[in-house]
Amino acid sequence: MSRDADYGRAFALWRDSAPEQWEAYTRHRFVQALGDGSLPRSAFLHYLRQDYVFLVHYSRAWALAVAKSTSLEEMKVAATTVDALVNHEMRLHVEVCAAEGIAEAQLFEVREAPQNLAYTRYVLDSGYSGGFLDLMAALSPCAMGYGEIGLALAAEASSDAYRPWIDTYAGEEYQDVCAGIGVMIDSALEERLGPRFADAPCWSALCRTFRTAAELEAGFWDMGLEGT
Amino acid sequence: MSRDADYGRAFALWRDSAPEQWEAYTRHRFVQALGDGSLPRSAFLHYLRQDYVFLVHYSRAWALAVAKSTSLEEMKVAATTVDALVNHEMRLHVEVCAAEGIAEAQLFEVREAPQNLAYTRYVLDSGYSGGFLDLMAALSPCAMGYGEIGLALAAEASSDAYRPWIDTYAGEEYQDVCAGIGVMIDSALEERLGPRFADAPCWSALCRTFRTAAELEAGFWDMGLEGT
Amino acid sequence: MSRDADYGRAFALWRDSAPEQWEAYTRHRFVQALGDGSLPRSAFLHYLRQDYVFLVHYSRAWALAVAKSTSLEEMKVAATTVDALVNHEMRLHVEVCAAEGIAEAQLFEVREAPQNLAYTRYVLDSGYSGGFLDLMAALSPCAMGYGEIGLALAAEASSDAYRPWIDTYAGEEYQDVCAGIGVMIDSALEERLGPRFADAPCWSALCRTFRTAAELEAGFWDMGLEGT
Amino acid sequence: MSRDADYGRAFALWRDSAPEQWEAYTRHRFVQALGDGSLPRSAFLHYLRQDYVFLVHYSRAWALAVAKSTSLEEMKVAATTVDALVNHEMRLHVEVCAAEGIAEAQLFEVREAPQNLAYTRYVLDSGYSGGFLDLMAALSPCAMGYGEIGLALAAEASSDAYRPWIDTYAGEEYQDVCAGIGVMIDSALEERLGPRFADAPCWSALCRTFRTAAELEAGFWDMGLEGT
Repeated sequence: MSRDADYGRAFALWRDSAPEQWEAYTRHRFVQALGDGSLPRSAFLHYLRQDYVFLVHYSRAWALAVAKSTSLEEMKVAATTVDALVNHEMRLHVEVCAAEGIAEAQLFEVREAPQNLAYTRYVLDSGYSGGFLDLMAALSPCAMGYGEIGLALAAEASSDAYRPWIDTYAGEEYQDVCAGIGVMIDSALEERLGPRFADAPCWSALCRTFRTAAELEAGFWDMGLEGT
Repeated sequence: MSRDADYGRAFALWRDSAPEQWEAYTRHRFVQALGDGSLPRSAFLHYLRQDYVFLVHYSRAWALAVAKSTSLEEMKVAATTVDALVNHEMRLHVEVCAAEGIAEAQLFEVREAPQNLAYTRYVLDSGYSGGFLDLMAALSPCAMGYGEIGLALAAEASSDAYRPWIDTYAGEEYQDVCAGIGVMIDSALEERLGPRFADAPCWSALCRTFRTAAELEAGFWDMGLEGT
Repeated sequence: MSRDADYGRAFALWRDSAPEQWEAYTRHRFVQALGDGSLPRSAFLHYLRQDYVFLVHYSRAWALAVAKSTSLEEMKVAATTVDALVNHEMRLHVEVCAAEGIAEAQLFEVREAPQNLAYTRYVLDSGYSGGFLDLMAALSPCAMGYGEIGLALAAEASSDAYRPWIDTYAGEEYQDVCAGIGVMIDSALEERLGPRFADAPCWSALCRTFRTAAELEAGFWDMGLEGT
Repeated sequence: MSRDADYGRAFALWRDSAPEQWEAYTRHRFVQALGDGSLPRSAFLHYLRQDYVFLVHYSRAWALAVAKSTSLEEMKVAATTVDALVNHEMRLHVEVCAAEGIAEAQLFEVREAPQNLAYTRYVLDSGYSGGFLDLMAALSPCAMGYGEIGLALAAEASSDAYRPWIDTYAGEEYQDVCAGIGVMIDSALEERLGPRFADAPCWSALCRTFRTAAELEAGFWDMGLEGT
């Protein structure tokens, strides 16, 4: 199975415009340690707690995307993503953490690591200060990156230690979310900038936003390893 | 059945702080004409088309509430409301309009009447420029007002002409949404301003926002009658 | 002197895309009554009080433009406009009103007419929910329209009754602000969409925003006449 | 001269609620090295380039404060601060950098360090997602902290190496800005929460925002030292 998942034209172009940053993020040592099972449980739990708070703010950013939508399709994809995040993806974290004796109320109050905060606030400000497309460029590295990482680990993992995590992101449900977001982003770009959207002068700013968000994702994995 | 539905302490106080505006809105001639069946079908359809576009922007405002939430409860209530609006309430409009030969894509492109635009943009700016509580004060007249109107008409209506509309808002599902929002707003106020929230100096600004939004709702009914 | 002032390419195109709305706004009966002196003083003062509150919110919208700027030039033009509005244009209103015995604190508390509120909140939401260009399209009808009206009345006015008002907007200082905004908007469009910006699919959305804002400006004059 | 400058009640309370974080920020090794002249010129220039980009985003946040103001005083203080930042404080950076052969256009394009980005986007999101007071709590550590650091170094500095920097922040003009902001923040709190504003339940959230911003300021100095 290829790890270059098909999440649309824009995503493929954005990823190709930041090859080093994308590699540093999706092939990070934390990711490899999920696959070969060498990631200490403490690091995983540290990551999971931070990721729960991350998802709170990431959901807020997708909710902002609903507020900034200008078509029914954009609105529905964004609203469905908020629902998936708040009522499903966050629940997985809650269940894993509950099994470790950590309640959701505690999770909500976890103090964010600076790398965590940097990423989510960058995404939110990209949305508030920019337009819908800026927000999509900032949101994509997380949504699609986890999709790619899930597929890659499902194909390559040599250990079952973190199989449930891998299955979540490699699973059909998550992959469908990524594919749906990809279709919507391509439409959003075409409706605003035309079929040759990558030729518009503002395309380079979108690539820069995507690249910065990918860098901040790599910083998030770094932070995860600090919990070791 | 009392029309003073129980949607929480804050709502009751807000409503009581603007008795004339609340009366002008919830006992408007448009509302009475829904109950006695005297509302011309053309006026109803005019209203329904505008209300569809209203709901697009009203959903955006509830999505903004997700982005501005600071507790898990706030986030869940707001996200559930967005889902209810985008995937359920708007669907009712779509179905009624479809039966009249109006497609959803057409609805989405309906040109907003100034009274429609005034209300939704006031709500959205209350959220963007203010805080979570300002947004709640601006959102409440619509959410709760329709709940009250639905209950009142269910008890008083002398005609079945607009029974499906009445049943929607008097129905348990919609009433539960209102009650849930009321509980969440009370909690949000208590967590920020304490149990005696109405004694805080900023309370009067919240009442003013609620009152302005109620006035703009009455303007929306005026606009509905213009379609006669 | 031509009333088709030169405030840049984008403005000329936007204006030409909404000829009826532009005419209804810039050749409104209120405007003509300023020129021939037939506007009752009470209507003028009613307008001035509302316009003061308008400027409060209009200044907020230009401040939002600073927050949404992506180049130094955009930032400086927007910041200078905020300063001009808050520290100069609003002062004129304050002085005229003071001469009539109305203090600034009272002005700040003036209750907005619905037409007033509709316009400013539409502009603010265009900025918050859209991007920098959407905000510019919503801000332009007011900034440039008053420039055009000022020039037209300076050339055509048959009465000196409202000469100070006319001189303010026909004056070099205000005209320079309009010209500077026009240059900045053209640059902003070129940097994002290229020199043929009017060929981008998103151009029509910008025209629609401009047109809606022009319609709301005409509504503001209507409201002014209500003070007669 | 005491380094506990008088910038109002709220600031004093916020500072006292985060003693460790405040110490770590205002007595940071970078600060001491400015005072004793041991800071390598390369570190200072690295810091200055990053600080220029910081000021771009910090100005955007103060502009957002104009948009979120609800009184004339708030609006004027915030607008004056934007003007001071965009037209004065940033100019100092431009001049120092120009003397080193770095043009302003280059400065504007400097790639932000993660610590830089984390702070400014945290401030901006505090404003966009929160209310006016949240934004003030996030903005204060930078504005007032530099005021305190300036005064402390003016009294303690053993070297003239960074005297112009010290004089800028210890100078009357900057100190007046801090004092004015302090007065405005106290008023804003009193108008919304009453004279005993620190008793309101939402006070602890404001303290948390202030503390987080102070921590991110310390991270900014850390980043400055990395340029050594």
